[in-house]
Amino acid sequence: MDDGRGPIRAPRGSALTARGWPQEAALRMLMNNLDPEVAEHPDRLVVYGGTGKAARDWPSYDAIIRSLTGLRADETLLVQSGRPVGVMTTHEWAPRVLIANSNLVGDWATWPEFRRLERLGLTMYGQMTAGSWIYIGTQGILQGTYETFGAVAAKRFGGTLAGTVTLTAGLGGMGGAQPLAVTMNGGVAICVDCDPRSIERRIAHRYLDVRAAGLDEALRLAYEARDARRPLSVGVEANAAQAVPELLARGAEIDVVTDQTSAHDPLAYLPLGVAFEDMAGEARKDPDGFTRRARESMARHVEAMVGFQDAGAEVFDYGNSIRGEARLAGYARAFDFPGFVPAYIRPLFCEGKGPFRWAALSGDPADIARTDRAILELFPENEPLTRWIRMAGEKVAFQGLPARICWLGYGERDRAGERFNDLVASGELAAPIVIGRDHLDCGSVASPYRETEGMLDGSDAIADWPLLNAMVNVASGASWVSIHHGGGVGMGRSIHAGQVTVADGTALAGEKIRRVLTNDPGMGVIRHVDAGYERAAEVAAERDVRIPMREAGG
Amino acid sequence: MDDGRGPIRAPRGSALTARGWPQEAALRMLMNNLDPEVAEHPDRLVVYGGTGKAARDWPSYDAIIRSLTGLRADETLLVQSGRPVGVMTTHEWAPRVLIANSNLVGDWATWPEFRRLERLGLTMYGQMTAGSWIYIGTQGILQGTYETFGAVAAKRFGGTLAGTVTLTAGLGGMGGAQPLAVTMNGGVAICVDCDPRSIERRIAHRYLDVRAAGLDEALRLAYEARDARRPLSVGVEANAAQAVPELLARGAEIDVVTDQTSAHDPLAYLPLGVAFEDMAGEARKDPDGFTRRARESMARHVEAMVGFQDAGAEVFDYGNSIRGEARLAGYARAFDFPGFVPAYIRPLFCEGKGPFRWAALSGDPADIARTDRAILELFPENEPLTRWIRMAGEKVAFQGLPARICWLGYGERDRAGERFNDLVASGELAAPIVIGRDHLDCGSVASPYRETEGMLDGSDAIADWPLLNAMVNVASGASWVSIHHGGGVGMGRSIHAGQVTVADGTALAGEKIRRVLTNDPGMGVIRHVDAGYERAAEVAAERDVRIPMREAGG
Ligand SMILES: NC(=O)c1ccc[n+]([C@@H]2O[C@H](COP(=O)([O-])OP(=O)(O)OC[C@H]3O[C@@H](n4cnc5c(N)ncnc54)[C@H](O)[C@@H]3O)[C@@H](O)[C@H]2O)c1
Ligand SMILES: NC(=O)c1ccc[n+]([C@@H]2O[C@H](COP(=O)([O-])OP(=O)(O)OC[C@H]3O[C@@H](n4cnc5c(N)ncnc54)[C@H](O)[C@@H]3O)[C@@H](O)[C@H]2O)c1
Repeated sequence: MDDGRGPIRAPRGSALTARGWPQEAALRMLMNNLDPEVAEHPDRLVVYGGTGKAARDWPSYDAIIRSLTGLRADETLLVQSGRPVGVMTTHEWAPRVLIANSNLVGDWATWPEFRRLERLGLTMYGQMTAGSWIYIGTQGILQGTYETFGAVAAKRFGGTLAGTVTLTAGLGGMGGAQPLAVTMNGGVAICVDCDPRSIERRIAHRYLDVRAAGLDEALRLAYEARDARRPLSVGVEANAAQAVPELLARGAEIDVVTDQTSAHDPLAYLPLGVAFEDMAGEARKDPDGFTRRARESMARHVEAMVGFQDAGAEVFDYGNSIRGEARLAGYARAFDFPGFVPAYIRPLFCEGKGPFRWAALSGDPADIARTDRAILELFPENEPLTRWIRMAGEKVAFQGLPARICWLGYGERDRAGERFNDLVASGELAAPIVIGRDHLDCGSVASPYRETEGMLDGSDAIADWPLLNAMVNVASGASWVSIHHGGGVGMGRSIHAGQVTVADGTALAGEKIRRVLTNDPGMGVIRHVDAGYERAAEVAAERDVRIPMREAGG
Repeated sequence: MDDGRGPIRAPRGSALTARGWPQEAALRMLMNNLDPEVAEHPDRLVVYGGTGKAARDWPSYDAIIRSLTGLRADETLLVQSGRPVGVMTTHEWAPRVLIANSNLVGDWATWPEFRRLERLGLTMYGQMTAGSWIYIGTQGILQGTYETFGAVAAKRFGGTLAGTVTLTAGLGGMGGAQPLAVTMNGGVAICVDCDPRSIERRIAHRYLDVRAAGLDEALRLAYEARDARRPLSVGVEANAAQAVPELLARGAEIDVVTDQTSAHDPLAYLPLGVAFEDMAGEARKDPDGFTRRARESMARHVEAMVGFQDAGAEVFDYGNSIRGEARLAGYARAFDFPGFVPAYIRPLFCEGKGPFRWAALSGDPADIARTDRAILELFPENEPLTRWIRMAGEKVAFQGLPARICWLGYGERDRAGERFNDLVASGELAAPIVIGRDHLDCGSVASPYRETEGMLDGSDAIADWPLLNAMVNVASGASWVSIHHGGGVGMGRSIHAGQVTVADGTALAGEKIRRVLTNDPGMGVIRHVDAGYERAAEVAAERDVRIPMREAGG
């Protein structure tokens, strides 16, 4: 596949290679998604999350780059599952790129049918920000993970994880954020992964502190650090389906248990009895048999998690669908522990909060330092946000283009975006900023095993919301907009949308930013008002979000 | 439900009740969808196609009307399954309304789950043009049905149905077009329906000629007319699951067989052994049992259709999923006859052709007569189109606001739309025109049992296309845009999009029309180029549709 081309790296600096900054931004962010510092398997166009890809194949990638380079400010490129399929004349308020990835009609929305179509060259898996060109490396998930473990600490351990041990597995693109998020919250983490490269990579990026030779050493290191209330993260090479039950059987003293192996895709979860080196080959040889064995192993894994819960630990599903897979294998208690969204995140969603992120197209870390200061200036009263921005500035190694993430809500995102645009206009930043977010956001996803699990009114599976979200972002002036299926939790289980908007310092960009960064989190507020969440109704009333069913008249 | 309000009828004339014509048009077309002349069950907000609704409930309807009335030219109303959920500030190129109806995450995309959510008040069935406010009564389907039977005639009977007998069932909102489409093609039709009101209504609207007392009389009338090569349509009250097998057993001389009972929804198909009067009650009492019995009856019905095919008749599925339901009941040969799209319609789709339609907001039939002339002036060389427009002017009774439909392709729709806009600008028309189409169009639907059945490359279930279609219409200046699930063929089986654009005579409307009516059919061309259809590639090359994978470079 790597047809002789060298590693991909986005252009830096303030000189355009395309005809305008929105096009240039899409081009740089696509390339950045495939930068070896960012992508898990750039040679196969795989960015993160199992097989989440940035483009269908190399000819498609080349054609996208070519189209973006020539695209006019009143044209729009259409991308269908990573392949560019059309260029149409629109207008200057329209997005420059529209993307639909991995979408299947409901009765066909399964992994086997998806794989059949993928083999025919007709689709690709876009995950969330892989196919929508706004993945920023492991930092992207770090803030969310930091918030989640912060919420666990607040709920169970008096606001800090100091003196506690967290057990998790999966140190891939997303899961690799866990050790740092735990230590940022003062705790100790034991992180299991069957791939030694995942462990090495997290150590190299300073997300993981040390590697233990085995479970014995891992426990010893963990207990020592815990007893000294010293933050520490320990990686250990093992199959989680073996290690987690074993730790339970030994009576290991674990306070928090979760998991981020890529369980959403049974072909990406190592079954018991398969050596890691043989995994790819076995999965290819007999996908059905491999799927069955992976699900059975997940059942053992989840059973041990439930065991830890029975023993008093705080246990949650971290959005990889492992409970659903375990239930498919016949394990009845799979859903005994909750997903992380209803447990910790939904109250934030009611305020339109979610993973706001941005990247400096200049490539200059100083640009991110300046935007960090802008956030601190804008929201001085927000203590956790301030703490995060400070720690991120110290501890987070950039991957690819320098980028930052922080969770902001309705009425905050637009202010941050407009400030960034002003900083570009005034020349305080070296080049434009792209502003985007994860598809995992307050009003952009329907995913009954994760973001919309256990909605108050039972509307978990209603998928109108992400589609309205995508359309309203197109209608508000976003630079590119995407609709994906199956991200995070796998085929048939989610529909979600993303947007990216470019702050190039122009007045037009300012107008677009104001609308997009108001309406996009506004979807989160109205979605949760509609579902009956009191806090969302308060936010709507306080911040003038218009809800027709609550307006006077008729 | 009918809380004392009188029948709904859209305002007519050139005076605005809302703040601008796009808003006014949405308001009038929503009301027009519920006009008793148009809707099948306006008291229950049901427009057509089983339970296809225009709004979720009366409070939602009232709030939509209220919101549209006050909506500014830079605001956008969001509608989630028939309920207005937000008003957001956008801009003047953005749609005034964005609609998402009936969408469910794949694993939950089933009738039982849909009905559960509907009972909770969380969703509604939008069908295709019911929930997107551009249903224009039975004429809407008449042109498509006329084209289909014309294609049957061309394929099997030397270009005319004269001297042939067609057997079909279902005289509802869509199916009621069949008798007139057959007689317009010179043939004889026997049309079975279990609801005497459906038969009476089609006679009142001049779509159906006569009613026979039973199968004997129906056959006698049909043979007489056939032998005289005289067009005739005969309605007969019966259960199709009983009548079609009986006609087969009798050796009835039938040349063409199809069906448009509302088989897509098993609770709307009368099972054998249930009296029509008891249907609603039985379905409510025991939905599961009713579903099973309906599917078994459909299996008998489809088995008889296959029998007619074995005997030499031209047999096709007319887009109601009856083959899929029959297969669910265990009938192995259900898919022995083709769907109408691969059999007759796909060649048209390759040219971006599809059901272009428009309505006169003035309410004045003279406005439609003038637009009819405009079509004749624009496309004088197109003989079938000319014939259709002439016959429609004579034979089609308007329902609600006067409207017209004709199939136009890429490079034609934009010309027609701009001409209409010019006619509004010059005052030749009394008020603006709304221009829309069915969701059943060349590039706006993924529906493996109907519009995308048997695609050349196997991409039947790929649902990226309708989502791109919706987004590109939002990005091109359409007045309202919708994304629906489950129209036509039912839950889990289709995803589709619609757009409506208002020609109010302004220069801005002209700009929007040029883009929307180019890009919207353009989706059909690129979708079929991507699937490998030669004709689509020719059309793209001849008419300058830009396909990045076919452009030079890299
Ligand atoms: N919670 C969230 O916000 C969120 C967001 C995005 C994705 N996810 C989900 O989290 C999961 C992980 O995502 P990722 O991007 O890190 O995936 P990834 O594919 O990059 O990494 C998965 C890791 O799991 C390891 N692994 C697989 N099977 C294992 C086993 N049996 N034992 C031990 N290790 C095993 C792999 O070696 C790999 O390092 C996915 O299911 C993804 O969908 C969650
Ligand atoms: N081919 C197309 O282009 C197209 C377009 C839209 C809809 N459809 C499909 O066509 C079907 C009909 O749509 P509609 O709007 O006319 O529906 P409708 O509900 O208005 O009418 C259905 C008719 O079928 C009759 N019927 C039900 N069961 C019967 C039985 N066992 N025997 C005889 N008659 C029976 C009903 O009495 C009713 O008159 C639907 O499934 C719809 O989804 C097809």
